[in-house]
Amino acid sequence: MPPRPNSSHEPPDVRMTGFTSRAPLEAAIGWLDRQLSPLPSERVPILELAGRVLAGDIASDFDVPGFPRAMMDGFALTAADTLGAAPYNRLPLQITGEVLPGREFPTAVETGQAVKIMTGAPVPIGADAVLPAEKVEVEEDRLYAMGEVAPGKHVGRAGEDVAVGSVVLPKGRHLRPQDVGVLSSIGVAEAEVVRRPRVRILVTGNELLPPGSKPSGCRIVDANSPMLAALVRRDGGVPINPGIVQDDPEAILHAMRDSADVVLVSGGSSVGQEDYAPRLLAEHGELAIHGVAMRPSSPAGMGKLDDRLVFLLPGNPVSCLCAYDFFGGRAIRVLAGLSANWPYRQLQARLRRKLVSAVGRVDYARIKLVAGEVEPLAISGASILSSTTRADGFVIVPGDSEGYPSDAEVTVWLYD
Amino acid sequence: MPPRPNSSHEPPDVRMTGFTSRAPLEAAIGWLDRQLSPLPSERVPILELAGRVLAGDIASDFDVPGFPRAMMDGFALTAADTLGAAPYNRLPLQITGEVLPGREFPTAVETGQAVKIMTGAPVPIGADAVLPAEKVEVEEDRLYAMGEVAPGKHVGRAGEDVAVGSVVLPKGRHLRPQDVGVLSSIGVAEAEVVRRPRVRILVTGNELLPPGSKPSGCRIVDANSPMLAALVRRDGGVPINPGIVQDDPEAILHAMRDSADVVLVSGGSSVGQEDYAPRLLAEHGELAIHGVAMRPSSPAGMGKLDDRLVFLLPGNPVSCLCAYDFFGGRAIRVLAGLSANWPYRQLQARLRRKLVSAVGRVDYARIKLVAGEVEPLAISGASILSSTTRADGFVIVPGDSEGYPSDAEVTVWLYD
Repeated sequence: MPPRPNSSHEPPDVRMTGFTSRAPLEAAIGWLDRQLSPLPSERVPILELAGRVLAGDIASDFDVPGFPRAMMDGFALTAADTLGAAPYNRLPLQITGEVLPGREFPTAVETGQAVKIMTGAPVPIGADAVLPAEKVEVEEDRLYAMGEVAPGKHVGRAGEDVAVGSVVLPKGRHLRPQDVGVLSSIGVAEAEVVRRPRVRILVTGNELLPPGSKPSGCRIVDANSPMLAALVRRDGGVPINPGIVQDDPEAILHAMRDSADVVLVSGGSSVGQEDYAPRLLAEHGELAIHGVAMRPSSPAGMGKLDDRLVFLLPGNPVSCLCAYDFFGGRAIRVLAGLSANWPYRQLQARLRRKLVSAVGRVDYARIKLVAGEVEPLAISGASILSSTTRADGFVIVPGDSEGYPSDAEVTVWLYD
Repeated sequence: MPPRPNSSHEPPDVRMTGFTSRAPLEAAIGWLDRQLSPLPSERVPILELAGRVLAGDIASDFDVPGFPRAMMDGFALTAADTLGAAPYNRLPLQITGEVLPGREFPTAVETGQAVKIMTGAPVPIGADAVLPAEKVEVEEDRLYAMGEVAPGKHVGRAGEDVAVGSVVLPKGRHLRPQDVGVLSSIGVAEAEVVRRPRVRILVTGNELLPPGSKPSGCRIVDANSPMLAALVRRDGGVPINPGIVQDDPEAILHAMRDSADVVLVSGGSSVGQEDYAPRLLAEHGELAIHGVAMRPSSPAGMGKLDDRLVFLLPGNPVSCLCAYDFFGGRAIRVLAGLSANWPYRQLQARLRRKLVSAVGRVDYARIKLVAGEVEPLAISGASILSSTTRADGFVIVPGDSEGYPSDAEVTVWLYD
């Protein structure tokens, strides 16, 4: 779309970066990546660490376990006392007590003695092995060993799971449930993790009604703010104040300056007279990219305002999703310490019919999987959000490609 | 492990299902699957729907859009008026006004007239096409058409995105961000979704200190409740009261009867004298499975108490994770309306060395990926939780297999 006839009031830099020349997608992503690094850290308590990203290595202040522990239920004893024991050569030992997990046995185990022990309990001083319960016959305070054990057998040594001083989890780790378990076991009460980016979601359009409304007359209900809020959460960000802002330069500028790391502006991203956001960004900050050689979402843009990253997402819902996937989501993930890559699973599959694209632009083609093969959905209709709910995912056609013939093997990114 | 010599105080049904015979994994999962169906629904507001599962089909009460709308910026007019228009044959039309998105144009468009229109605005009555701005020259209240348009061109028809009465999303749909956008656009304020299972996490062991403590003497810090809480959240459940309960039958029974859909008991799942949970379940409910032919987590069990599903997970953290993955997580996902399948991504890769297993039991073998190949980690050490943080995932060796030779291609389940 060339500049509109009534675009003479736009400031010069908007006209210059206007849509007579669109940035190649690679250039847009190149600019974006130069702006991105993980946010500073914050301390988060152990029970809220899952899914967060470590800001530094975590080394253990403790051996885990901190003591030699029984690995089986049985009897702690001196291994040498079992030498030669067998069902036909039962060797008697005196049971001097019992030790349960979490309790210290008060005295040492001497030769000829045994202490009943449960899995996980500390092996008493003097004992060097655990004879499993099934190799023993018990008669009151006496046992008969019916098998041998070697020294160290069924005893977990101190530090066997985690040794004091060792790095348990590295900087940048996206914490899994079991990682949080390990952190808990080494006595971590809080850890430094990358702060979650705060993302202001700002939807413009006087025709919009807030989510939860019924469509009425020629007003439509905002689909983008609930969609964007969910996408932001998926990518490790915290959506703030998602909602509609009136199509008014003052109101939009004020909202763009909300306390946030990232601003997503949906709607009014193009070069028309009501497209305030690009002009405001150019005037008060930096409009680095405006117009990208891609479909949908060619009117997307991005820049910076007071150190905040600002993404101009087209108001058409499919374009909004596509521009978010390429730019906003990437930024949020990197700021959150996560991989820049899409969180979508990918698979290789065969095209059922040809997928046509124009050289010079990247296509984000929604597709359906039919019997394991790729059926392209209508590529037009950036306003048809339901095309993304009918779709199972999308295929990217690069800028230097005219598309793919029928039967070609393509990479599919799955929406879930 | 055969019943211990001091197991004579156990009630008969525990002894009968004791570990002299372990259930095959398939039988355990078979029993479990017969207990499972999605929970009843609850109404949830639009902004909280992402990630939830629809309890029924959603049909639209509205056409979206509800009116014919402009798909480009330009001029709404009668297509017939542009017949023969070209740069060398400019046809004049009278501009009678402007229509913005969300506004109704008050009068009809007559032959010879045009109304300036923005993308998304309702096409006025009488107009049947939009002539794009770049095919027009404007002089005050007059335009010159420099190109033709066919009737219907650049006009989105009412119901083009969603038609009234059509099913937009089906029962059982795991709602994606864009699905929530579509629901918002059709005026959904709340939807019926499957209720999230409430999961009581009950960790036993007198040797345990609560998460956030430092390990001290022969007491260790509970790793399982933070790990299980994160796993439950991942699988669509709501963890309640995760924490340590004293090794005391009264306290454990009371906690098992907490208001919940699922109870996860960690620790005390075996047949020892301090293993209260299986006996309590047998006495007050149903202990359906106790002991499973798998490694680790052979002392796992499950049953029902007052209609709650109860899972007995071994206290050793790796066993706990494994038993959760096979049983507890599966139940929570199905109750939440999700797929029973593991949420782990899988890939095929080559074994770097042989992976040995015993016929008659299923092995959950932690592995590392080294240069794209599968390196088995020590399979022993169910207490070594750090083996699951060093691992990239796991390989399952079925019960009828002795393992896999070096160079075999195996399926890897990736932890993240």
